[in-house]
Amino acid sequence: MGKNGLKVFAPASVANIAVGYDILGFAVNDIGDEVIVREGSEPGLKIRSIHNYPSLPKDIRKNTAGFAALKLLESLGMENEAIEIDLIKNMGIGTGLGSSAASAVAGVFAVNEFIGRPYKKRELLRFATLGEQIADGSFHADNVAPSLLGGIVLIRDNATLDVVKLPAPLGLKCVLIYPLVEILTEEARALLSKSITLEQHIQQSGNLAAFVAALYKSDFELLSRSLNDCIIEPQRSKLIPHFDEVKSLAMENEALGYSISGAGPSMFALCSNSHIAENVAESIRRFYQDKKIECNYYISDINLDGAVRY
Amino acid sequence: MGKNGLKVFAPASVANIAVGYDILGFAVNDIGDEVIVREGSEPGLKIRSIHNYPSLPKDIRKNTAGFAALKLLESLGMENEAIEIDLIKNMGIGTGLGSSAASAVAGVFAVNEFIGRPYKKRELLRFATLGEQIADGSFHADNVAPSLLGGIVLIRDNATLDVVKLPAPLGLKCVLIYPLVEILTEEARALLSKSITLEQHIQQSGNLAAFVAALYKSDFELLSRSLNDCIIEPQRSKLIPHFDEVKSLAMENEALGYSISGAGPSMFALCSNSHIAENVAESIRRFYQDKKIECNYYISDINLDGAVRY
Repeated sequence: MGKNGLKVFAPASVANIAVGYDILGFAVNDIGDEVIVREGSEPGLKIRSIHNYPSLPKDIRKNTAGFAALKLLESLGMENEAIEIDLIKNMGIGTGLGSSAASAVAGVFAVNEFIGRPYKKRELLRFATLGEQIADGSFHADNVAPSLLGGIVLIRDNATLDVVKLPAPLGLKCVLIYPLVEILTEEARALLSKSITLEQHIQQSGNLAAFVAALYKSDFELLSRSLNDCIIEPQRSKLIPHFDEVKSLAMENEALGYSISGAGPSMFALCSNSHIAENVAESIRRFYQDKKIECNYYISDINLDGAVRY
Repeated sequence: MGKNGLKVFAPASVANIAVGYDILGFAVNDIGDEVIVREGSEPGLKIRSIHNYPSLPKDIRKNTAGFAALKLLESLGMENEAIEIDLIKNMGIGTGLGSSAASAVAGVFAVNEFIGRPYKKRELLRFATLGEQIADGSFHADNVAPSLLGGIVLIRDNATLDVVKLPAPLGLKCVLIYPLVEILTEEARALLSKSITLEQHIQQSGNLAAFVAALYKSDFELLSRSLNDCIIEPQRSKLIPHFDEVKSLAMENEALGYSISGAGPSMFALCSNSHIAENVAESIRRFYQDKKIECNYYISDINLDGAVRY
């Protein structure tokens, strides 16, 4: 890594979690982006390389990792410091697993460490969200906050970044399923109706409040009854091949719940143990294999640490 | 009370709690309805008297207390038992404090005790909600559940009566304010727009989830930031004279939050201690006095017991 260099990791994340559109997300283990940061050869922040996705922009104002780090440096009047970063993309783009958010978090977290940690972790949220905004167009933290902080995170208010870490019940397992089809976040957003009925709001609210209560109570049965999205999933699931069938498979195999991760096409199941998680994942993989659709899966605990320095 | 008679109390309640339209409610102390039950002189359930509101129907099929108790007796094939009840209404009707729900709960709770408690308390919820439906027209439990069970109650789903008792933080005080103006629940319901924007839903959801988290964390600051209704209050507050001014007074006096109780015109404040509760109540009483509007107030803890037998 060269003189005084350091390396960080920021995890992938599942936004929305069925009942918390734009306000809930959780982080997963192992999958995520990395950033290496070191002293640069000339003034200013530079992206030296992007591994695995060389076509992504290296212009720091157009790259979520670069822009998040730049905003941090500007806030300290340090934008002319000679700093170089390498961005290592370990996850697909446009999969609905918070790829751009993980890069933004890794970028700002790495640079904050490199310059002596002037900000506490939680204070990096604003910079990371500004970075994420480059990819997404809107200022919201439902991927950035869990990737930075770890755990299951509630964003009470995106504008003020008022976030609350919710408890992750012991033993809760997550299955990520990603069929290899592409969905653009903008397309998935454009699909959504701008209004909902008061009845839908009441139903979703009851489930959301019960989901939060279930996390505090470690009540898996309540969690399962609450994981029921009557607003977003019925609209977005049309973009995912065979969504209803694979969801049924997951529920038959005793998943607590199954829905779309972020804007999709990735999906997630929450499960009460590893054995169930394996059954859910395998049944869906075989189903997609029969349909000649390539599909990866990954089983993880809820990641409790968020961004870390190696 | 005569031979084998018994008397019960069911408390008033505050439905909606700003961010949980149709899904949240809490019970208060001391204010509520009472039912005396005893052996009747002829077969069948009869309402012998209604104290304080003699104009309410004594027909058990048209009275929330009578109908709730009748549904319980029918479920056991006991509708021809000779049972008489007196209903003692200790609270105004149409105030938004769950008067009809308290009667329904008191009626069914009293009769269940009288016949030897064949049902557990929680099992009475369905009968009480059927009773409440007579007054309200719709099957929902946001007043009935807290009046029966006590505490702060979440109704995840009204249709299946899937309810969750949420923790009531120690020290939390409630102020009830009821200006003497009448609002009909049907009128207040008819006022509401049948649809909302997705943006409103996101904002309200963030606050609702944070409200639930704040109860579990006993975090009064988070509770205060979350008590912010962007959907129902702006529509219904028009029916309450000077709502915006008295809400401002409450917040200036350090209430954690201030909103409409049920369909109004009663309002409630949540406060972090008795001293603040007194200041909030007195400031609003004086304000309404200056405007020549009569107004009662009442300060209470969250009632943790719900319906009780004396």
